[in-house]
Amino acid sequence: MKLYDLDGSGNCYKVRLFAALANIELEIEAVDFLSGAHKKPPLADLNPLGQVPILQDGSRVFRDSQAILVYLAGTYGGLAWWPAHPQGQADIVQWLSFAANEVQHSLCTARLVQKFGYDLDQPAALAKSPGVLSLLDKHLEHHDWLAIGRPSIADCAVYPYVALAPEGGVDLAPYRHVARWIARLEALPGYLPKPR
Amino acid sequence: MKLYDLDGSGNCYKVRLFAALANIELEIEAVDFLSGAHKKPPLADLNPLGQVPILQDGSRVFRDSQAILVYLAGTYGGLAWWPAHPQGQADIVQWLSFAANEVQHSLCTARLVQKFGYDLDQPAALAKSPGVLSLLDKHLEHHDWLAIGRPSIADCAVYPYVALAPEGGVDLAPYRHVARWIARLEALPGYLPKPR
Repeated sequence: MKLYDLDGSGNCYKVRLFAALANIELEIEAVDFLSGAHKKPPLADLNPLGQVPILQDGSRVFRDSQAILVYLAGTYGGLAWWPAHPQGQADIVQWLSFAANEVQHSLCTARLVQKFGYDLDQPAALAKSPGVLSLLDKHLEHHDWLAIGRPSIADCAVYPYVALAPEGGVDLAPYRHVARWIARLEALPGYLPKPR
Repeated sequence: MKLYDLDGSGNCYKVRLFAALANIELEIEAVDFLSGAHKKPPLADLNPLGQVPILQDGSRVFRDSQAILVYLAGTYGGLAWWPAHPQGQADIVQWLSFAANEVQHSLCTARLVQKFGYDLDQPAALAKSPGVLSLLDKHLEHHDWLAIGRPSIADCAVYPYVALAPEGGVDLAPYRHVARWIARLEALPGYLPKPR
């Protein structure tokens, strides 16, 4: 099972992190990002959005880090990370959407500009970031994990760009419940350190 | 089972549309949006993002239209709209993320500015829209439905802001496979017309 991967990408790291935590073996294929390999065939045929990560498992191909987490957890991760009951799945999907929308357009975008020089709206991304982190902090004041009362793919989807937020110029110091959740996640068996 | 709803919201319409197609009964509670009821308790306690839709089913509360679709389909919709196997679920989640991220920040944002006067970046939203629609059009050239070879909550999540795109100043005429998919969806038994 192959993951088309970029080392510094938080979206790719979501998948590598979850695979490490759930002890799922992946063949990592580094994508030649600087030459734009993800924007051309054969990769652009696998993911017409021209993005990584892409997961290829035999004839099955999935794009989108959130969808890849669902596939891996549901197929190889047992019920611990993605339960079979729809209440638990919906509880998790709330946070998958939060990762794909709110986190992507705040913490992730700020990092893309500051660390990699992307031409995106850094002030708008920074303006959204405190709201995203405050919401997380309030939730984590009363919950050890984002969903279903235990570690799940919800945490794997949201943690990366939160933990990497300082690389986008976002200060995590005001959010002490977020800091404790980060420490809890980083203490899980199998934890894979975030990209440097 | 109560849906906190705003008539003109495409995100709320996703839920009402799916409930109509799957014959699930919802008690609709209109939110007093102009007075900001969604930003204050008790609604802001149910959804700290300060947004609608919110679904309340007994003691269970879900925010985020995508998560609500998963909950309703998984709990009351049978396996037709949200299958039990993780490959099908991941196939659908690719499009739920596409709805939460790409569609939200292009077609939906353009409509929020043009129809409701939101202070958002209309030129950026319009610049992203052709890429979103071209990707959909290419996919729908070879697929009748977005995922799993049949109508699913993927279609219910993506259709609303595509069908409403002209209200944001986006021309759908160049995308003939999208137009045929729209017609197929609107011909499904139980279809609920989009907001006017």
